[in-house]
Amino acid sequence: MTETLSPQTILEELAGVLPQAQLVTGQATEAYLTDQSDGTAAGEPLAVVFPKSTAEVAAIVTLAAANGIPLVPQGARTGLAGGANSITGAIVVNLTRMNRIVSVDTADQTATVEAGVRTYALARAAAAAGLFYPPDPGSWKGSTIGGNVATNAGGMLCVKYGVTGNFVRRLTVVLADGSIVHTGQRTIKGVAGYNLTALLVGSEGTLGIITEITVGLLPAPAPASGVSATFSTTAEALAAAALIVTNNRRPSVLEFLDGSCITAINAFDPASTLPEGAAALLLVQSDAAGQADDDVAEYARILEAGGAGEIVIANDPAHLDQLMSARRLLQPALQAARGASLNEDVTVPRSQLQALLSGLQEISRELLIPISTGGHLGDGNLHPVIGFDPDLPAEVDAAHRAFKRVIQLAVTLGGSASGEHGIGLLKQAHLDDELGLAVRELQRRVKLAFDPASLLNPGKKL
Amino acid sequence: MTETLSPQTILEELAGVLPQAQLVTGQATEAYLTDQSDGTAAGEPLAVVFPKSTAEVAAIVTLAAANGIPLVPQGARTGLAGGANSITGAIVVNLTRMNRIVSVDTADQTATVEAGVRTYALARAAAAAGLFYPPDPGSWKGSTIGGNVATNAGGMLCVKYGVTGNFVRRLTVVLADGSIVHTGQRTIKGVAGYNLTALLVGSEGTLGIITEITVGLLPAPAPASGVSATFSTTAEALAAAALIVTNNRRPSVLEFLDGSCITAINAFDPASTLPEGAAALLLVQSDAAGQADDDVAEYARILEAGGAGEIVIANDPAHLDQLMSARRLLQPALQAARGASLNEDVTVPRSQLQALLSGLQEISRELLIPISTGGHLGDGNLHPVIGFDPDLPAEVDAAHRAFKRVIQLAVTLGGSASGEHGIGLLKQAHLDDELGLAVRELQRRVKLAFDPASLLNPGKKL
Repeated sequence: MTETLSPQTILEELAGVLPQAQLVTGQATEAYLTDQSDGTAAGEPLAVVFPKSTAEVAAIVTLAAANGIPLVPQGARTGLAGGANSITGAIVVNLTRMNRIVSVDTADQTATVEAGVRTYALARAAAAAGLFYPPDPGSWKGSTIGGNVATNAGGMLCVKYGVTGNFVRRLTVVLADGSIVHTGQRTIKGVAGYNLTALLVGSEGTLGIITEITVGLLPAPAPASGVSATFSTTAEALAAAALIVTNNRRPSVLEFLDGSCITAINAFDPASTLPEGAAALLLVQSDAAGQADDDVAEYARILEAGGAGEIVIANDPAHLDQLMSARRLLQPALQAARGASLNEDVTVPRSQLQALLSGLQEISRELLIPISTGGHLGDGNLHPVIGFDPDLPAEVDAAHRAFKRVIQLAVTLGGSASGEHGIGLLKQAHLDDELGLAVRELQRRVKLAFDPASLLNPGKKL
Repeated sequence: MTETLSPQTILEELAGVLPQAQLVTGQATEAYLTDQSDGTAAGEPLAVVFPKSTAEVAAIVTLAAANGIPLVPQGARTGLAGGANSITGAIVVNLTRMNRIVSVDTADQTATVEAGVRTYALARAAAAAGLFYPPDPGSWKGSTIGGNVATNAGGMLCVKYGVTGNFVRRLTVVLADGSIVHTGQRTIKGVAGYNLTALLVGSEGTLGIITEITVGLLPAPAPASGVSATFSTTAEALAAAALIVTNNRRPSVLEFLDGSCITAINAFDPASTLPEGAAALLLVQSDAAGQADDDVAEYARILEAGGAGEIVIANDPAHLDQLMSARRLLQPALQAARGASLNEDVTVPRSQLQALLSGLQEISRELLIPISTGGHLGDGNLHPVIGFDPDLPAEVDAAHRAFKRVIQLAVTLGGSASGEHGIGLLKQAHLDDELGLAVRELQRRVKLAFDPASLLNPGKKL
C-alpha cells in the first residue's frame, strides 16, 4: 500500500525530524546492537536514534510506520534476554537521552520521569524527598526505568514491596501509528477502562514505546537491619527460609547464594567478604519502622534453630550495604568467572525450590557444565547462571542445552521461564509449553490490536 | 452466518447441557435482574443459568456463541454500577453455585477457589490456615471473589495491602468461543507472555468469564489496634490524615466519614456508637507485628496535634471490630436513609481531597440534593453517596445530575470516575472525557481481540 522509500531516503527523513547529533548510522551503530545477554543474535540496524522528547519519538515512529520499518526500543541495554537487541534494517530507538526527572510529588507520593532515567537516579530523587521507590533490580545503577517497566523488573526488595509493575500508575506511550496516548492514572486506584498500563508493563517494547512513567512512592523506610547465615546444606537453608516466609515479621530481603556464587563474587570484588566454604548463604533484612532490630533478632533465632553455621548480624548501614552490594554482583561475577554465561530467571512455587535446586545439580552433572545459583528465594525466583567459554563450541552447545533443560524443569514444577528478566530472544521457544497454544493465540491477537503491522520490536517477547 | 435458533430451541439446548435445577426462566428470572445499584436498567433475559463447573460454563458459552446470544456473568449481585445487570434476551450466567474452595496451600501461600466463593469465606479459609487474604470490600460477607476480580474491588485494608488485582495470580477463564484457558501462574512473579491476568482483572465480564482464581496470601497479620478521632472541620481531618500517610509507620486502615454518614450509620444499626456531632471522623489502624500499639499511640499523637476532638483508642479486637463493622455500613445505611442512592466511587490524587470535598458541598448546595461522603481517605478513593427519593421525579433528576457533576469534578482534579466499584452501566458516559478517544479506541480493539462478536456482557464497562 505504502510507497516504500529507499534506506537513504529514510535516513534523510530521519535527519529532518532529529538533530544530527541524535542520529547514529553505519559502523557507529555497533555500540548499540545488544544487551548484556550472551548467546543472542543482533542484526545491523538502519540507524540508532536518540530522541529527547515524546514528540521526537512520535515523529520517528510515524516515519517508520509510513515506510514499514521495524522499530527496536532500547534503554541502557542492561537486559539479559536479548529484548533490546537490534534487528536487521530496524530503527533502534535508544531512550537514554530522555532522562529528565519531571517531578517528585511529596503530597501525592508520586514521581514522573522520562523513560531513560536510571533506576538508581529515580530511587535517589525519591529518597531526597523523603520518599521510597522500592524496586531494585541488580542492574539498577545502570538500567533505565523504561527498561524496568518494559520487562517488569524485580529486585531484592520485591519480596516485601512487589515488582516494578506494582508501582507504575500512568504511562505516556507512543503507539505503533505514531500517536501519543496516556494510560492509567495518577491516583492510587482506578478501574476506568481496561488496565492497559498493566498490559504494557512487561511487554518488552512490542505494544508501544513507553516514553514517560508516573510511579507511586512510599514513605522512606526506617533504617534496615540484616542478618547473613551460612548453611552446610541447601536443604537446611531452604527450610529455615520457609519459616521466615511464614512469619508475620515480613522480611524486606530474603536472598540465597550457593557456595560457587560466593566464591565468584569474592574473586570478582576484593572488597567482598562473604563467608566462603558453606553450601549456601541466606541474606535476610527487615526495614520495619521501630522494629527492624527485633525482627532481625527473630530471624537470627530461626536461622540458628535451623542449623545455620556462621550468623552475622548487620545492624549498621555500612555493613548491611556491603552485604547487599556483594549480592548484587552475582551476575557479572559469574559471567566474568567463565568468560560468558546464560542467565536463567526461572521462578517456581516456593514449595518446589528444593526440587528445582536438585534438578539443577542433575542437569549440571549430566551436561558437564557449571551452574551457579542465587537469587530471590522469598519470591521463588532464582537465577541459575550457566557459565561457558564462548570459544569452545562444545561448551557453548552444552550451555544452550542446559539453558533449555532448566526452563523445562521450572515449567514442570509449576513455574515459569522468567520471573523478571523477560523473554526477549532467549526464551521464546519455551512459551508454547508454558502458556499453551490458546493463550499464545490470544496474545498474538492482543499484539495485533496494538500493532497491526508488527513493526514494534518484531521477533521479541511473543 | 450462523443459523439462528428460536429462543425456545435455545432453552431446550440449554436444558441439554445443564440439569433443570440449574436453569431458571420466565418470571423467576426477576430475582436476578440487577445488582445493588439504584438507577440502572435491566432487560428480561432468555434464562438465568447456575453452572457448577468450568465445563458447564464452557458448554453454555459455546451454545450462546453458536447462536449469537449475549452473555451476562453474575456473582452475588452486590455491585454498585450495574455491571451484573441482565440484558434483554441474554443468558445470565450466575456463578454463585461454583463455590468450592479448591485448595489452600500453606507452603506456597496461595488459595485456589471457584469464582462463586464469597470473599469472606475465602478470607476465613485463609485465616484458618494461618494465612491472610487482605482485600475486604464493604460487601465482602456477600460478594463473590469472582465479582471482586471482575471489578478489581478494593476495601479498607487496601491502603496498606493493595487491591484485589494485587493478589490475583492465575485465572481459569472461559473465552467468548467457549474455550477454556488459564492465564498467569501460581508463582509470585512471572513475565512469560503479556499480562492477560491483569487485563482480565477489572474487565467486568466483557473479555471472558472467570471461573476459578488462584490468589496469593500473606502470613496472618498480628492483632490490630486502632484509633478513631473526631474533627470539627474536614480540613483538619485531611491535614492530620496527610501526616499519617507520610509516616513510615504505615496504617493498615485510614478511613473517613463525614458527620452525615455517622448519623446515618448510627440510625441504621443501633449497635453502632460512632461519636455524633463532629464534622468528620477518622479511623486509623495498624497491624504491624510487634508494633501495632506503638503505631496507634503515634497516630493518636498526630491526630491530637492536628486538632482532634474525641480520640478513642481501640486496643482490643472486639472494640476495633465494632468500629470497623460500623464503617462497613456506610452504603446500606445511606441508601436506607433516603430510599435510594447513587453511589459514587471517585478517586483523586490525595493532594486534591480538600478540593473534592469542597466541590461536593457546592454540588449539593446548587442541586439541593444531599451528598454524604465517606471512604478510603488513604487511597484518595471516596464514596460520595447521593441520596434521593425514588418516587420524586425532581429528586431523581437532581441526583443523576449531581452524579455526573461529581465525576466531572473528580476527573478535573486529575482523578477517575471509579476506584473500585467499576464502570458497569452507570459511568460509561464519562469514559471519553477521562480516557481520551485514542485510548477508548485501543480498548475497543482489545475487546474485539477477546470477543469479536461482542457477546460478553455487551454494553457494560466500555
